[in-house]
Amino acid sequence: MSTPDFLTDFHEVARIGATENGGVDRQAATEEDRRTREWFREFAQRRGWEVRVDGIGNQFALVEFTPGAPHILLGSHLDSQPLGGRFDGAYGVIAGLHAADRIARRVAEGGERPAVNLAVVNWFNEEGGRFAPSIMGSSVFAGLMDEQLMLEVRDLAGVRVRDALEAIGYLGSDARPQICGYAEIHIEQGRILEREATPIGAVDYSWFTQKLDIEVLGEQSHTGATAMADRHDALVGAAQVIMKVHEVTGCFEPETLVSSVGQLTLEPNSPIVVARRVHLVADLRAAEERVVREARARLLDDFAGIASASGLTINATDFDVRDNQHYPEDGLALTERVAADLGLGARRIRTMAGHDSVAMNRIAPTVMMFIPSVDGVSHCEREFSRDEDMLAGLDVLTEVGWRMLHGALACTPNGGAPVSR
Amino acid sequence: MSTPDFLTDFHEVARIGATENGGVDRQAATEEDRRTREWFREFAQRRGWEVRVDGIGNQFALVEFTPGAPHILLGSHLDSQPLGGRFDGAYGVIAGLHAADRIARRVAEGGERPAVNLAVVNWFNEEGGRFAPSIMGSSVFAGLMDEQLMLEVRDLAGVRVRDALEAIGYLGSDARPQICGYAEIHIEQGRILEREATPIGAVDYSWFTQKLDIEVLGEQSHTGATAMADRHDALVGAAQVIMKVHEVTGCFEPETLVSSVGQLTLEPNSPIVVARRVHLVADLRAAEERVVREARARLLDDFAGIASASGLTINATDFDVRDNQHYPEDGLALTERVAADLGLGARRIRTMAGHDSVAMNRIAPTVMMFIPSVDGVSHCEREFSRDEDMLAGLDVLTEVGWRMLHGALACTPNGGAPVSR
Repeated sequence: MSTPDFLTDFHEVARIGATENGGVDRQAATEEDRRTREWFREFAQRRGWEVRVDGIGNQFALVEFTPGAPHILLGSHLDSQPLGGRFDGAYGVIAGLHAADRIARRVAEGGERPAVNLAVVNWFNEEGGRFAPSIMGSSVFAGLMDEQLMLEVRDLAGVRVRDALEAIGYLGSDARPQICGYAEIHIEQGRILEREATPIGAVDYSWFTQKLDIEVLGEQSHTGATAMADRHDALVGAAQVIMKVHEVTGCFEPETLVSSVGQLTLEPNSPIVVARRVHLVADLRAAEERVVREARARLLDDFAGIASASGLTINATDFDVRDNQHYPEDGLALTERVAADLGLGARRIRTMAGHDSVAMNRIAPTVMMFIPSVDGVSHCEREFSRDEDMLAGLDVLTEVGWRMLHGALACTPNGGAPVSR
Repeated sequence: MSTPDFLTDFHEVARIGATENGGVDRQAATEEDRRTREWFREFAQRRGWEVRVDGIGNQFALVEFTPGAPHILLGSHLDSQPLGGRFDGAYGVIAGLHAADRIARRVAEGGERPAVNLAVVNWFNEEGGRFAPSIMGSSVFAGLMDEQLMLEVRDLAGVRVRDALEAIGYLGSDARPQICGYAEIHIEQGRILEREATPIGAVDYSWFTQKLDIEVLGEQSHTGATAMADRHDALVGAAQVIMKVHEVTGCFEPETLVSSVGQLTLEPNSPIVVARRVHLVADLRAAEERVVREARARLLDDFAGIASASGLTINATDFDVRDNQHYPEDGLALTERVAADLGLGARRIRTMAGHDSVAMNRIAPTVMMFIPSVDGVSHCEREFSRDEDMLAGLDVLTEVGWRMLHGALACTPNGGAPVSR
C-alpha cells in the first residue's frame, strides 16, 4: 500500500455530512456519524488492523507489535455540533490514524519494535449537542460516567442512545483495549497560537468550568387582553438573566471569564401567550476556579434582585462542574522536545473547552496538543485551520506517539497499574 | 326533555382535557377538541336540531322556525390555549346552546314564532396556539382567509390542518348556513368589569393590533473556547429586543399600550454553542392605531441601535395587522336595553383580544358582550368567572338572541344582502 496522503483523506472525510457553507453536520449516532465510522473501519481494515466497538459506541483500531501488552492510544472524535466545523475532533482522529500508519511502516522498515501496542480511537459523542452530557464515550471508558445510565439518555425527539447506536449498527460489545498512555491533537478553538504564529500548543491544564441550570417562573396570560401591570412574564425575566450572564464577564480582566447562555426553552411558546416558564443553561469558564466562583455568586445575587423586582421566581442550580485538570509535566516536556527536534515553535497553553483527553488524563499519562485556529472560531461552519498547520501537527503527533511507544512516559496510569475498562 | 342546567353542562365540558390546576388543554383538532365536538353534537341531536360541519371544521347546530329563511347565529369556540382556561370560548358556545334551547322552548310554549332561524356555532381554531393564524374558522367563514390555504397550514410537528381535522372526523363538507346576524358572549379577560362590579360589557370596538416578526442573526461559536470579543451572540441581541418590547409601553400613559414577546426559538439551542439565530414574535396592541404606530417606530429605531452596537443583524417585519373594528351602534343599544330590562348594570368596553365576532362583524350585524373575569387573567389555568356572572350573561344572551330573531337589528349583513359563505 502506497503512503496515504493525509490531506486527501482529511478532505474526503469533510465531505461526509458537508453543509453548504463549508461545515459539517454529523451529530452522534446519526447516518452521517455512521458514514464516518465506516470510513474509519475501512482505513484500519485495509491495513489488517483489528477494529473493535465497545458498549458505548467507542470505535478502536488496534495495531499490534507485542501480543498481550497494553496500548498507547491516539485519537479524538468524528462527531460534530449541528452546523459545526470540519476540523473539531475529526482532525485528531484522522491525524491519529495517519500517525499510526507511519509508525507501523517505520517498525516494518526496521525501526525499533515497541514493547507495547498502539491503538487509535474515535470516541462516541464528544460534542453532546444531541445527547447530553458531552464527552460521553471517553468518560464512560475512564469510569467517570455510568455506561448503563448513558445508554438511557434521550435526545429531544425521545430517542435513547442505546437505540440510536443500534440503529446505525454501532452498539458494540467488544473488549476495551488496555491503555497505558493517551495522546490527542486538536484545533485550539481560540486565537492565541495564530496571533503568536506558534504552530504547536502543549496543553498544560483545562479551565475550571461549570454550568448553571436556570428556571424562571411567571404566570401564563394573554399577550393582548392582560393589562401590563397584571403580567408576570417569565421571558422578560429570562432576558434580564441573559444580559447578566453576558455582562458579568465585564467584572473581571478581559477574557479571564467567558460566559454565555446557549440553550433556552419557553412554555408555552405561543405568539399570543405570555410565557409562564423559561429554562436556560449558562456556561461559565475561567482559568481560575476563584473567578468562576465569584461570577457565580454575583449572578445568584443578580437573579435574586431580578426576582424580587419583578415578582418572578428564579431557581438556579449548579451542574457539570469540572475542576481544573493538569496534564502531567513529563508529557508537556515531551511535546516541547519533539517540536524543537522538528524545528517547530511550541508554547504552553490552557484549554477553555472540554476534551476527551480531560477524561483520559484521569486514568493514564496523557499528552494534549493544539494547532492554530484561524480567527479563533469554532463550533461553526467557518471554523478553519491551514493545511500546513495540520501537517506540522501530524508530524508532532507521530513522533510523540513513537516516543511514548518506546517508554518516553512512565507507562502507568495515574496512581496505579495499566487500566482496562 | 327537562330544562337543562347550564352550570351542570358547563362543568361537564370543563372536564374534557382538564389539567391538574383547574384549566383545560384542548388545542384545535386534537382528541380533546374532538370530545368537545361530540358533546356539542349530542346536545343538538337530543333536541332534534340539525348538525353541520363545514370545510374548515366549523360546527353548527340549526334550530328551524321558518324553512328557507336565514339564521341568527350565536356562539364562540371550544378550543383552548395549551394549559389554558376553561372559560375562554367555551362559555360562549355553551351559553349559546342553552340560549337556543330556551328560545326554542319559548316558541314551542306559544311565544311569537320568528321569521328567521337560529343557529349555534363552535368555530374552528380561534386560539391559533397549534395552527397560526388564530380566528381561523370564523375568518374563513367571513371570506377573510382562504379555506384551501388554511387547510395547508402546518403545526410545529408538520401536521396539516386538513389531516388533523380528518383524523378527528371533523373535516366536513356541509353547506354553510346563511347568516343575517351574529351574537357572542365571552369573558372579558381584563379586570374593568370586575373592578366596577358591572355584570355586562357591551363591546363597542376592538383594539388596533399588530405583530412584529423579528429575526436576530449572529454567528455560531463555542460557549467555552471562543473569546468574548469574538462572539456574535444572537441570544444577547434577542434579550435586548425582548426588554425594548417590554419597556416601550412605558413611553405611553399606563395601559394605553400592551406588548410582549410570547414566541422565541433559537438555533442551534445547544448548551455549549453560542446561538447563530433567534426568531421572535412581538404582539403590540392599543385602542388607538396612532399609539401602535408610534411604538412600532420606536422599536425599529431601538433594534437598529442594538444591531449597530453589537454587530448583529436584526430584521423586523409587520404581520397580522388588525384595524380597529367598530361594532354597530344599534347592537350596543340592544345589549344595554336588554341588561336594563333584566335589572343588570352594563357599560361600554373595548376588546384588546381578537374574537370570532371581529371577523363576523365584517359580514353581518354583530353584537359582542363580556362578563367579568376574576383578576383579569386569561390564557392560563387560573382564569375564572363566577357562576352568577355566567348565569346573568346567559340571560342577556338569550334575550338579545330573542330580540334579534324578532327584528331588533336590521337583518342584513354590513352593506348587502344576507350572506351565505
